[in-house]
Amino acid sequence: MTSFVIVGHQARTDGGFSLNDLPGAGRMDVLCRAVNASFFLSHDMRRDVECYLVLCGEPAPPKTIKFDGSTVRSLSPDERSAGALIKKALSTICGSEFREAGAGVWVRTGGLSRLVTELPVAVLDEKGTDIRVAPMLPDVFLLSDHENFTAGEEALISTCPRYSVGPKCLHADHTITVLANELDRRSSGWK
Amino acid sequence: MTSFVIVGHQARTDGGFSLNDLPGAGRMDVLCRAVNASFFLSHDMRRDVECYLVLCGEPAPPKTIKFDGSTVRSLSPDERSAGALIKKALSTICGSEFREAGAGVWVRTGGLSRLVTELPVAVLDEKGTDIRVAPMLPDVFLLSDHENFTAGEEALISTCPRYSVGPKCLHADHTITVLANELDRRSSGWK
Repeated sequence: MTSFVIVGHQARTDGGFSLNDLPGAGRMDVLCRAVNASFFLSHDMRRDVECYLVLCGEPAPPKTIKFDGSTVRSLSPDERSAGALIKKALSTICGSEFREAGAGVWVRTGGLSRLVTELPVAVLDEKGTDIRVAPMLPDVFLLSDHENFTAGEEALISTCPRYSVGPKCLHADHTITVLANELDRRSSGWK
Repeated sequence: MTSFVIVGHQARTDGGFSLNDLPGAGRMDVLCRAVNASFFLSHDMRRDVECYLVLCGEPAPPKTIKFDGSTVRSLSPDERSAGALIKKALSTICGSEFREAGAGVWVRTGGLSRLVTELPVAVLDEKGTDIRVAPMLPDVFLLSDHENFTAGEEALISTCPRYSVGPKCLHADHTITVLANELDRRSSGWK
């Protein structure tokens, strides 16, 4: 099982946003593409993956949405499809424990401070260890959206191992794609 | 200069489609994500990249749209942004030579049969040479959308070199992301 955790610093935490303007919903488009990158293969899905979105925007931050690849349904590759499932999750009344808002999509209140106590996260960081040379790779990867981690978030993850996917700073979804390719190669005996 | 060529087998060839339903426009969403993967870095763009979309759907197939990274403007990472530029290009009256439909976006009639006489394309293929072990990589990569190349297209590219990005069959945009990462590493002296 591989898990990807993406922090959306301005991502809306209610379901009132428009699917016609995902960037305007606190760059929800970034999170939608991260969901796509986490799960989609050509004509198949990665069922052994979980994707956590930590939404920190108004009006009710933070919330965490979990996509479970083993059970998720009704997810297509386009941004609007993931956006519609996120919107439904954010329209679901939730408390501090995960509640299923749709097949394979769960939502709860709370954010990164709790998640890092539950998952052994490794952080994607340009200065981290190159994923190609690391003898072993972790199971849980934490990424930020278009904004850097805040000082408060950095304090939460200061002792986490750090990995880099290459010499250029990439979007979160592209980073996930490169990570998944490295994991595919390792599990299949490719170099 | 690196070029990516993506064939959209059902992609609409007029500008009448809705940005609210890019999948319904012959899976235009696939091409929009390919544009994103070709150009976007975190807070930067790959200016030394060209992306060609070969659109083969109704009502006026084929057409070719070229995005030139050195001059393109008004392109954001979300699918709708690329979709809006494609829609504008397809609404532009064009002939057999490229006409600029917007900053850095060009359109002409004609498709793959002409393009392969102009560009030294290499084909992405699961059975191709692993891009990590190839001593040199080509400058032009040809990918298909969610459909396989047709028999007619395969005849056009039967003698082209073939490369693979890994053990799993990926979406076109994910393949471009992995290719770009390999090229980044090579140009930066990473393994």
